[in-house]
Amino acid sequence: MKEQKGTEESALFVMDGVKGGHDGLSKISPKKFRKKKDDKFDLQKLAADIRSGNRIALSRAITLVESSNSEHKEQAQKLLQELLPYTGNSIRIGITGVPGAGKSTFIESFGTMLCDKGKKVAVLAIDPSSTLSGGSILGDKTRMEKLSRTSNAFVRPSPSAGTLGGVHKKTRETMLLCEAAGFDVILIETVGVGQSETYVRGMVDFFLLLVLTGAGDELQGMKKGIMELADGIIVHKSDGDNVNRARKTVREYKQILHFLQPATPGWMSTSLAVSSIAKTGLKETWEMICKFEETVKSSSFWDLRRSQQTKDWFHNMITDHLIESFYNNKDNKNLINDLEKSILHGDITVTQGVKRLFE
Amino acid sequence: MKEQKGTEESALFVMDGVKGGHDGLSKISPKKFRKKKDDKFDLQKLAADIRSGNRIALSRAITLVESSNSEHKEQAQKLLQELLPYTGNSIRIGITGVPGAGKSTFIESFGTMLCDKGKKVAVLAIDPSSTLSGGSILGDKTRMEKLSRTSNAFVRPSPSAGTLGGVHKKTRETMLLCEAAGFDVILIETVGVGQSETYVRGMVDFFLLLVLTGAGDELQGMKKGIMELADGIIVHKSDGDNVNRARKTVREYKQILHFLQPATPGWMSTSLAVSSIAKTGLKETWEMICKFEETVKSSSFWDLRRSQQTKDWFHNMITDHLIESFYNNKDNKNLINDLEKSILHGDITVTQGVKRLFE
Repeated sequence: MKEQKGTEESALFVMDGVKGGHDGLSKISPKKFRKKKDDKFDLQKLAADIRSGNRIALSRAITLVESSNSEHKEQAQKLLQELLPYTGNSIRIGITGVPGAGKSTFIESFGTMLCDKGKKVAVLAIDPSSTLSGGSILGDKTRMEKLSRTSNAFVRPSPSAGTLGGVHKKTRETMLLCEAAGFDVILIETVGVGQSETYVRGMVDFFLLLVLTGAGDELQGMKKGIMELADGIIVHKSDGDNVNRARKTVREYKQILHFLQPATPGWMSTSLAVSSIAKTGLKETWEMICKFEETVKSSSFWDLRRSQQTKDWFHNMITDHLIESFYNNKDNKNLINDLEKSILHGDITVTQGVKRLFE
Repeated sequence: MKEQKGTEESALFVMDGVKGGHDGLSKISPKKFRKKKDDKFDLQKLAADIRSGNRIALSRAITLVESSNSEHKEQAQKLLQELLPYTGNSIRIGITGVPGAGKSTFIESFGTMLCDKGKKVAVLAIDPSSTLSGGSILGDKTRMEKLSRTSNAFVRPSPSAGTLGGVHKKTRETMLLCEAAGFDVILIETVGVGQSETYVRGMVDFFLLLVLTGAGDELQGMKKGIMELADGIIVHKSDGDNVNRARKTVREYKQILHFLQPATPGWMSTSLAVSSIAKTGLKETWEMICKFEETVKSSSFWDLRRSQQTKDWFHNMITDHLIESFYNNKDNKNLINDLEKSILHGDITVTQGVKRLFE
């Protein structure tokens, strides 16, 4: 079978019937797909195709994971369970920054450099509001054009603006699929909106923050506490007239980082100047990440964090489920609204409100 | 009736029977208390006593609010509802800092100065682990000896180490009781442990962070993001040889604050050097808080924040209740433990774990 490379457009349209023809992978339109009750979903075949590095199979599996169809959900979980033993072998890198910091350009240059080094790089995006950030499926494709065409790379844009809860849940599972497909480096891009950085920090090993020169002004627009999540801060667009200013900004960030508690115990977060156009600082960024990996793996914290992340994920999903199913109940919702009014009006105390709600 | 001042020891022992004798306030030991089913709890009397500024009545009401007895709980809520119209007229100040920063000494000096100015000052403490911080009922009493004896002051130590959820819930209601009793300034002290600062930030107007000189080293031990909660940072123990170093530290903090998003929209968080022993910087601290009040009240944010805090409190209590009652179920707990093991062992996915849990 021919190895499929680079783009995954075709796979975006094959959702209705995951089971395919002889090779389990041929493109099936919903109309052509004849569903039989006794048709068993060929899980083993898909899992094997993913493990062999087939991009179409991987894309199809991701689409399956992202589907809200209950049958697909069940199939997705079976597939993930099948692939779990082959996950966990990548380095997981989260990348964030204000809009305009040049995240896509950086990922394009950085990812291409890693591919040239022989690394297999998967790029995933968490974008809770693609209209706000200007990012979109087409946007990502265009922006990371070169990387998308690189044989060692796999670029999976954010499916759509949606609830963050859903998106991050899927991104975590998508990451596992990419690991099973043999990717060494997973880059998860997010914008500084809502809780997305905290979610991404909760699923990666290394968290990278992209900023521009003029740190103070720049950070005004960023979320509180974001710097304290970062294992490394890239001062981007360090090219042309901007080189000296970028160096100065790097020094400023290093100074600030000195005041903050490290994001990862045993690792002193640091700052670097990078130009994705002049291709400077990219090698140093990778060296920084490799040194981080070495340092943190030599303590027990690497595995500890990953176990803790899995546990946290489980408990967050339990909490999400509890809250969601409670607030989704229409009677509860109406009663909460009424009680909220009474509380703000000073008619009842908050504790009384809670008591009445659960009576 | 004689006005009771300063200490509230006696009130700490009257919990069993809130209803007293003729004046509703006499000390009753559990043995002496004869409970009659038709005995109506004299709510109006207690409420009136609190509003008249009677400290014993206030202490008794706080003990009632803190009680876990279901009958007391109900009485406490009725009392709070009665007093709600008289709450909200104080300035609520949260104070935090690393152990050793001198929070109690600062509160003693600052509170005494405010009392001398004619302000009525209530001091409450949230201390989720009094053994860890060295704080305790006796400790607080001893440390704030002078303030405790000041007629305009009311010092209520943290009842005991306990679950934070319970403590903060009670502290918020205790704050309301103190406001109904006519206190102008509420100082809520907390240590930098767990989520306590976030809880305190969620119930105060102004949040003050106490630090020592040598900012960088000092903050290493503090929680992440704590600086970004602060409306003001006091560099404490600015006395003797330490004055110049304190001034330098103030400049450093001002520089860092410039890089951070303000804790309160429209207010530029700032830093001051204070000595509680030499009594320097205390007046300036109060001026800063007054200027803050004026600035934030002139925008609509003052009322907006308070409404939002009440709403958040309501929703947090709903969430707490949901999670608590779910995790308190023994079957759920056992199943969660088993599922957690299976997940960490790689037998099932997190999503499968959640699904099985709710099946």
